[in-house]
Amino acid sequence: MLTALEREAARGRAAGILQEAGIALTGSEASEIEVADFGLSRLEETGLEVVTYINTDRVCAKELVMFPRQLCPEHRHPPVDGSPGKEETFRCRSGIVYLYTEGEPAAQPAAKAPADGVFTVWHEIVLHPGDQHTIMPDTLHWFQAGDEGAIVSEFSTRSTDERDIFTDPRIQRETQIEG
Amino acid sequence: MLTALEREAARGRAAGILQEAGIALTGSEASEIEVADFGLSRLEETGLEVVTYINTDRVCAKELVMFPRQLCPEHRHPPVDGSPGKEETFRCRSGIVYLYTEGEPAAQPAAKAPADGVFTVWHEIVLHPGDQHTIMPDTLHWFQAGDEGAIVSEFSTRSTDERDIFTDPRIQRETQIEG
Repeated sequence: MLTALEREAARGRAAGILQEAGIALTGSEASEIEVADFGLSRLEETGLEVVTYINTDRVCAKELVMFPRQLCPEHRHPPVDGSPGKEETFRCRSGIVYLYTEGEPAAQPAAKAPADGVFTVWHEIVLHPGDQHTIMPDTLHWFQAGDEGAIVSEFSTRSTDERDIFTDPRIQRETQIEG
Repeated sequence: MLTALEREAARGRAAGILQEAGIALTGSEASEIEVADFGLSRLEETGLEVVTYINTDRVCAKELVMFPRQLCPEHRHPPVDGSPGKEETFRCRSGIVYLYTEGEPAAQPAAKAPADGVFTVWHEIVLHPGDQHTIMPDTLHWFQAGDEGAIVSEFSTRSTDERDIFTDPRIQRETQIEG
Protein backbone atom coordinates (compact mmCIF):
# COMPACT_ATOMS: atom_id res chain seq x y z
CA MET A 1 0.00 0.00 0.00
CA LEU A 2 1.28 3.41 -1.02
CA THR A 3 -0.34 6.80 -0.66
CA ALA A 4 -0.88 8.78 -3.83
CA LEU A 5 1.62 11.30 -2.46
CA GLU A 6 4.28 8.61 -1.94
CA ARG A 7 3.73 7.39 -5.47
CA GLU A 8 4.07 10.89 -6.92
CA ALA A 9 7.25 11.52 -4.93
CA ALA A 10 8.79 8.26 -6.19
CA ARG A 11 7.77 9.07 -9.76
CA GLY A 12 9.39 12.48 -9.58
CA ARG A 13 12.55 11.05 -8.08
CA ALA A 14 12.78 8.31 -10.70
CA ALA A 15 12.17 10.80 -13.53
CA GLY A 16 14.98 12.96 -12.17
CA ILE A 17 17.38 10.01 -12.02
CA LEU A 18 16.62 9.12 -15.65
CA GLN A 19 16.98 12.73 -16.76
CA GLU A 20 20.33 13.01 -15.02
CA ALA A 21 21.48 9.85 -16.85
CA GLY A 22 20.50 11.43 -20.18
CA ILE A 23 17.59 9.02 -20.78
CA ALA A 24 14.79 10.97 -22.46
CA LEU A 25 11.15 10.28 -21.61
CA THR A 26 8.04 11.83 -23.08
CA GLY A 27 5.90 13.82 -20.65
CA SER A 28 3.28 11.10 -20.43
CA GLU A 29 5.93 8.42 -19.82
CA ALA A 30 7.32 10.47 -16.92
CA SER A 31 3.90 11.04 -15.38
CA GLU A 32 2.94 7.37 -15.66
CA ILE A 33 6.07 5.74 -14.20
CA GLU A 34 4.93 2.59 -12.40
CA VAL A 35 5.83 2.57 -8.72
CA ALA A 36 5.70 -0.98 -7.34
CA ASP A 37 5.91 -1.71 -3.62
CA PHE A 38 5.06 -5.41 -4.03
CA GLY A 39 2.43 -5.09 -1.31
CA LEU A 40 4.96 -4.72 1.52
CA SER A 41 4.53 -0.93 2.03
CA ARG A 42 8.33 -0.59 2.33
CA LEU A 43 9.09 1.02 -1.02
CA GLU A 44 12.60 2.19 -0.14
CA GLU A 45 13.57 -1.40 0.69
CA THR A 46 11.42 -3.54 -1.63
CA GLY A 47 10.30 -1.74 -4.73
CA LEU A 48 10.88 -0.74 -8.33
CA GLU A 49 10.17 2.27 -10.50
CA VAL A 50 9.36 1.12 -14.03
CA VAL A 51 9.02 2.82 -17.40
CA THR A 52 7.47 0.38 -19.89
CA TYR A 53 8.45 1.55 -23.35
CA ILE A 54 6.61 -1.21 -25.15
CA ASN A 55 4.83 -4.47 -24.37
CA THR A 56 3.37 -6.18 -27.44
CA ASP A 57 2.45 -9.84 -27.86
CA ARG A 58 6.09 -10.56 -28.73
CA VAL A 59 8.42 -7.89 -27.35
CA CYS A 60 8.76 -5.88 -24.15
CA ALA A 61 11.28 -3.20 -23.19
CA LYS A 62 11.46 -1.39 -19.86
CA GLU A 63 13.72 0.93 -17.93
CA LEU A 64 13.96 0.01 -14.23
CA VAL A 65 15.00 2.71 -11.77
CA MET A 66 16.23 1.42 -8.42
CA PHE A 67 16.84 3.65 -5.42
CA PRO A 68 19.93 2.89 -3.29
CA ARG A 69 19.69 -0.71 -2.01
CA GLN A 70 16.14 -1.07 -3.30
CA LEU A 71 15.37 -4.68 -4.24
CA CYS A 72 13.04 -6.63 -6.50
CA PRO A 73 11.92 -9.72 -4.59
CA GLU A 74 12.52 -13.32 -5.70
CA HIS A 75 10.21 -14.56 -8.44
CA ARG A 76 9.98 -16.56 -11.65
CA HIS A 77 8.07 -16.25 -14.93
CA PRO A 78 6.10 -19.47 -15.53
CA PRO A 79 4.69 -20.66 -18.87
CA VAL A 80 1.64 -18.55 -19.81
CA ASP A 81 -1.06 -19.39 -22.35
CA GLY A 82 1.07 -21.86 -24.30
CA SER A 83 4.18 -19.63 -24.33
CA PRO A 84 7.26 -20.90 -22.47
CA GLY A 85 7.25 -17.92 -20.08
CA LYS A 86 9.10 -14.63 -20.09
CA GLU A 87 12.76 -14.50 -21.07
CA GLU A 88 14.45 -11.31 -19.92
CA THR A 89 17.83 -9.65 -20.22
CA PHE A 90 18.91 -7.13 -17.60
CA ARG A 91 21.46 -4.59 -18.80
CA CYS A 92 22.98 -2.28 -16.19
CA ARG A 93 23.06 1.33 -17.42
CA SER A 94 24.32 3.04 -14.27
CA GLY A 95 25.14 2.07 -10.70
CA ILE A 96 25.70 -1.52 -9.60
CA VAL A 97 23.17 -4.37 -9.53
CA TYR A 98 23.52 -7.55 -7.49
CA LEU A 99 21.53 -10.21 -9.32
CA TYR A 100 20.78 -13.62 -7.78
CA THR A 101 19.60 -16.67 -9.60
CA GLU A 102 19.74 -20.46 -9.48
CA GLY A 103 23.19 -22.02 -9.15
CA GLU A 104 26.15 -22.22 -6.78
CA PRO A 105 25.38 -19.83 -3.89
CA ALA A 106 27.79 -16.99 -3.10
CA ALA A 107 29.77 -17.53 0.10
CA GLN A 108 29.51 -13.85 1.02
CA PRO A 109 26.75 -12.22 -1.04
CA ALA A 110 27.01 -8.48 -1.54
CA ALA A 111 23.24 -7.93 -1.28
CA LYS A 112 21.67 -6.92 2.00
CA ALA A 113 18.44 -8.87 2.23
CA PRO A 114 15.79 -7.95 4.82
CA ALA A 115 15.73 -10.44 7.67
CA ASP A 116 12.04 -11.28 7.21
CA GLY A 117 12.30 -11.76 3.43
CA VAL A 118 12.17 -15.10 1.61
CA PHE A 119 15.15 -15.64 -0.66
CA THR A 120 16.12 -19.14 -1.79
CA VAL A 121 18.60 -18.52 -4.66
CA TRP A 122 22.00 -16.98 -3.99
CA HIS A 123 24.07 -17.48 -7.13
CA GLU A 124 25.51 -13.98 -7.49
CA ILE A 125 26.04 -12.00 -10.69
CA VAL A 126 27.38 -8.47 -10.26
CA LEU A 127 26.42 -6.06 -13.05
CA HIS A 128 28.34 -2.84 -13.60
CA PRO A 129 27.38 -0.33 -16.32
CA GLY A 130 27.49 -2.13 -19.68
CA ASP A 131 27.15 -5.59 -18.12
CA GLN A 132 24.09 -7.72 -18.75
CA HIS A 133 22.62 -11.11 -17.92
CA THR A 134 19.77 -13.13 -19.42
CA ILE A 135 17.26 -14.94 -17.20
CA MET A 136 15.59 -17.80 -19.02
CA PRO A 137 11.88 -18.61 -18.43
CA ASP A 138 10.73 -20.09 -15.13
CA THR A 139 14.09 -19.42 -13.42
CA LEU A 140 14.08 -17.97 -9.90
CA HIS A 141 15.80 -14.58 -9.55
CA TRP A 142 15.92 -11.41 -7.50
CA PHE A 143 18.11 -8.33 -7.51
CA GLN A 144 19.19 -5.36 -5.46
CA ALA A 145 20.82 -2.06 -6.41
CA GLY A 146 24.08 -1.03 -4.76
CA ASP A 147 24.56 1.92 -2.44
CA GLU A 148 24.23 4.47 -5.26
CA GLY A 149 21.08 2.99 -6.82
CA ALA A 150 20.93 1.81 -10.42
CA ILE A 151 19.26 2.07 -13.80
CA VAL A 152 18.61 -1.24 -15.56
CA SER A 153 17.28 -1.78 -19.08
CA GLU A 154 15.14 -4.87 -19.46
CA PHE A 155 14.71 -6.49 -22.90
CA SER A 156 12.24 -9.37 -22.91
CA THR A 157 9.37 -11.28 -24.40
CA ARG A 158 5.88 -10.11 -23.43
CA SER A 159 5.47 -9.10 -19.79
CA THR A 160 2.53 -10.49 -17.87
CA ASP A 161 3.61 -9.23 -14.44
CA GLU A 162 0.39 -10.39 -12.79
CA ARG A 163 1.31 -14.00 -13.64
CA ASP A 164 4.74 -13.86 -11.96
CA ILE A 165 5.20 -16.29 -9.07
CA PHE A 166 6.89 -14.82 -5.98
CA THR A 167 8.62 -16.96 -3.39
CA ASP A 168 7.48 -14.77 -0.46
CA PRO A 169 3.74 -15.43 -0.01
CA ARG A 170 3.21 -11.89 1.31
CA ILE A 171 4.07 -10.32 -2.06
CA GLN A 172 1.33 -8.78 -4.18
CA ARG A 173 2.60 -7.65 -7.58
CA GLU A 174 -0.15 -5.08 -8.09
CA THR A 175 0.45 -1.95 -6.03
CA GLN A 176 -2.54 -0.69 -4.05
CA ILE A 177 -2.87 3.08 -3.76
CA GLU A 178 -4.41 4.33 -0.53
CA GLY A 179 -7.40 6.63 -0.53
CA MET B 1 33.12 -2.58 -49.53
CA LEU B 2 34.99 -0.93 -46.66
CA THR B 3 38.66 -0.99 -45.83
CA ALA B 4 39.59 -2.32 -42.42
CA LEU B 5 40.82 1.18 -41.60
CA GLU B 6 37.48 2.75 -42.52
CA ARG B 7 35.71 0.21 -40.35
CA GLU B 8 37.96 0.91 -37.37
CA ALA B 9 37.50 4.68 -37.78
CA ALA B 10 33.71 4.29 -37.85
CA ARG B 11 33.82 2.00 -34.81
CA GLY B 12 35.86 4.51 -32.86
CA ARG B 13 33.59 7.36 -33.84
CA ALA B 14 30.45 5.41 -32.91
CA ALA B 15 31.94 4.35 -29.57
CA GLY B 16 32.73 7.99 -28.82
CA ILE B 17 29.18 9.09 -29.65
CA LEU B 18 27.75 6.45 -27.30
CA GLN B 19 30.19 7.36 -24.54
CA GLU B 20 29.30 11.03 -24.84
CA ALA B 21 25.61 10.09 -24.52
CA GLY B 22 26.37 8.19 -21.30
CA ILE B 23 25.65 4.76 -22.83
CA ALA B 24 28.13 2.28 -21.34
CA LEU B 25 29.61 -0.52 -23.44
CA THR B 26 31.96 -3.28 -22.41
CA GLY B 27 35.37 -3.23 -24.09
CA SER B 28 34.48 -6.14 -26.35
CA GLU B 29 31.19 -4.53 -27.36
CA ALA B 30 33.04 -1.35 -28.37
CA SER B 31 35.65 -3.23 -30.37
CA GLU B 32 33.02 -5.32 -32.18
CA ILE B 33 30.60 -2.57 -33.26
CA GLU B 34 29.12 -3.64 -36.58
CA VAL B 35 29.77 -1.15 -39.37
CA ALA B 36 27.33 -1.73 -42.24
CA ASP B 37 27.74 0.00 -45.61
CA PHE B 38 24.99 -2.07 -47.29
CA GLY B 39 27.37 -2.81 -50.15
CA LEU B 40 27.28 0.72 -51.58
CA SER B 41 30.73 1.85 -50.31
CA ARG B 42 29.25 5.19 -49.26
CA LEU B 43 29.19 4.71 -45.50
CA GLU B 44 28.67 8.38 -44.62
CA GLU B 45 25.52 8.45 -46.75
CA THR B 46 24.13 4.88 -46.50
CA GLY B 47 25.23 3.05 -43.40
CA LEU B 48 24.69 2.12 -39.79
CA GLU B 49 26.85 1.46 -36.74
CA VAL B 50 25.26 -1.26 -34.63
CA VAL B 51 25.80 -2.62 -31.14
CA THR B 52 23.82 -5.84 -30.72
CA TYR B 53 23.26 -6.33 -27.00
CA ILE B 54 21.39 -9.57 -27.39
CA ASN B 55 19.82 -11.70 -30.12
CA THR B 56 18.22 -14.90 -28.84
CA ASP B 57 15.55 -17.02 -30.50
CA ARG B 58 12.91 -14.69 -29.06
CA VAL B 59 14.37 -11.26 -28.23
CA CYS B 60 16.81 -8.82 -29.81
CA ALA B 61 18.04 -5.44 -28.57
CA LYS B 62 20.43 -3.13 -30.39
CA GLU B 63 21.79 0.37 -30.21
CA LEU B 64 22.02 2.05 -33.63
CA VAL B 65 24.45 4.93 -34.06
CA MET B 66 23.80 7.13 -37.08
CA PHE B 67 26.21 9.78 -38.29
CA PRO B 68 24.70 13.09 -39.52
CA ARG B 69 22.25 12.37 -42.36
CA GLN B 70 23.33 8.71 -42.52
CA LEU B 71 20.46 6.51 -43.69
CA CYS B 72 19.34 2.90 -43.47
CA PRO B 73 17.93 1.91 -46.87
CA GLU B 74 14.37 0.73 -47.49
CA HIS B 75 13.65 -2.86 -46.51
CA ARG B 76 11.19 -5.23 -44.88
CA HIS B 77 11.40 -8.27 -42.60
CA PRO B 78 9.56 -11.18 -44.22
CA PRO B 79 8.27 -14.31 -42.46
CA VAL B 80 11.21 -16.59 -41.58
CA ASP B 81 11.09 -20.28 -40.69
CA GLY B 82 7.44 -20.24 -39.63
CA SER B 83 7.74 -17.01 -37.60
CA PRO B 84 5.72 -14.00 -38.83
CA GLY B 85 8.89 -11.94 -39.36
CA LYS B 86 10.69 -9.39 -37.25
CA GLU B 87 8.70 -6.81 -35.29
CA GLU B 88 10.82 -3.86 -34.21
CA THR B 89 10.42 -0.71 -32.16
CA PHE B 90 12.75 2.23 -32.79
CA ARG B 91 13.21 4.56 -29.83
CA CYS B 92 15.13 7.77 -30.43
CA ARG B 93 17.68 8.40 -27.66
CA SER B 94 19.40 11.48 -29.07
CA GLY B 95 19.26 13.55 -32.24
CA ILE B 96 16.37 13.39 -34.70
CA VAL B 97 15.31 10.45 -36.86
CA TYR B 98 13.15 10.70 -39.97
CA LEU B 99 11.40 7.36 -40.34
CA TYR B 100 9.45 6.41 -43.46
CA THR B 101 6.97 3.59 -43.76
CA GLU B 102 3.85 2.55 -45.65
CA GLY B 103 0.95 5.04 -45.64
CA GLU B 104 0.05 8.54 -46.82
CA PRO B 105 3.25 10.06 -48.26
CA ALA B 106 4.64 13.30 -46.84
CA ALA B 107 4.17 16.29 -49.16
CA GLN B 108 7.57 17.67 -48.24
CA PRO B 109 9.65 14.96 -46.57
CA ALA B 110 12.44 16.11 -44.29
CA ALA B 111 14.82 13.33 -45.36
CA LYS B 112 17.39 13.93 -48.06
CA ALA B 113 17.45 10.76 -50.14
CA PRO B 114 20.28 10.14 -52.61
CA ALA B 115 19.12 10.67 -56.19
CA ASP B 116 20.12 7.17 -57.29
CA GLY B 117 18.46 5.42 -54.33
CA VAL B 118 15.26 3.38 -54.48
CA PHE B 119 12.67 4.56 -51.97
CA THR B 120 8.99 3.71 -52.42
CA VAL B 121 7.42 4.55 -49.03
CA TRP B 122 7.21 8.15 -47.83
CA HIS B 123 4.86 8.17 -44.87
CA GLU B 124 6.91 10.29 -42.45
CA ILE B 125 7.31 9.83 -38.71
CA VAL B 126 9.68 12.24 -36.98
CA LEU B 127 11.28 10.90 -33.80
CA HIS B 128 12.81 13.23 -31.25
CA PRO B 129 14.53 11.93 -28.08
CA GLY B 130 12.00 9.85 -26.12
CA ASP B 131 9.79 9.22 -29.17
CA GLN B 132 9.37 5.73 -30.60
CA HIS B 133 7.55 3.85 -33.33
CA THR B 134 6.86 0.14 -33.91
CA ILE B 135 7.29 -1.41 -37.35
CA MET B 136 5.21 -4.56 -37.72
CA PRO B 137 6.56 -7.56 -39.69
CA ASP B 138 6.89 -7.40 -43.47
CA THR B 139 6.29 -3.63 -43.58
CA LEU B 140 8.55 -1.48 -45.79
CA HIS B 141 10.56 1.16 -43.94
CA TRP B 142 13.73 3.25 -44.08
CA PHE B 143 15.14 6.02 -41.93
CA GLN B 144 17.67 8.82 -41.88
CA ALA B 145 19.28 10.76 -39.05
CA GLY B 146 19.01 14.54 -38.95
CA ASP B 147 21.89 16.98 -39.31
CA GLU B 148 23.30 16.16 -35.84
CA GLY B 149 23.18 12.38 -36.20
CA ALA B 150 21.21 10.16 -33.84
CA ILE B 151 21.23 7.26 -31.42
CA VAL B 152 18.32 4.83 -31.74
CA SER B 153 17.48 1.89 -29.49
CA GLU B 154 15.89 -1.04 -31.29
CA PHE B 155 13.76 -3.54 -29.36
CA SER B 156 12.61 -6.49 -31.47
CA THR B 157 12.00 -10.15 -32.00
CA ARG B 158 14.95 -12.18 -33.28
CA SER B 159 17.10 -10.45 -35.94
CA THR B 160 17.96 -12.39 -39.06
CA ASP B 161 19.48 -9.46 -40.96
CA GLU B 162 20.62 -11.67 -43.84
CA ARG B 163 16.96 -12.47 -44.60
CA ASP B 164 15.87 -8.81 -44.89
CA ILE B 165 14.52 -7.82 -48.31
CA PHE B 166 15.82 -4.49 -49.64
CA THR B 167 13.98 -2.50 -52.30
CA ASP B 168 17.20 -1.35 -54.01
CA PRO B 169 18.65 -4.40 -55.80
CA ARG B 170 22.21 -3.08 -55.34
CA ILE B 171 22.05 -3.51 -51.56
CA GLN B 172 24.03 -6.27 -49.88
CA ARG B 173 23.32 -6.52 -46.17
CA GLU B 174 26.62 -8.20 -45.33
CA THR B 175 29.51 -5.71 -45.36
CA GLN B 176 32.61 -6.79 -47.28
CA ILE B 177 35.95 -5.75 -45.80
CA GLU B 178 38.68 -5.04 -48.33
CA GLY B 179 42.02 -6.77 -48.12
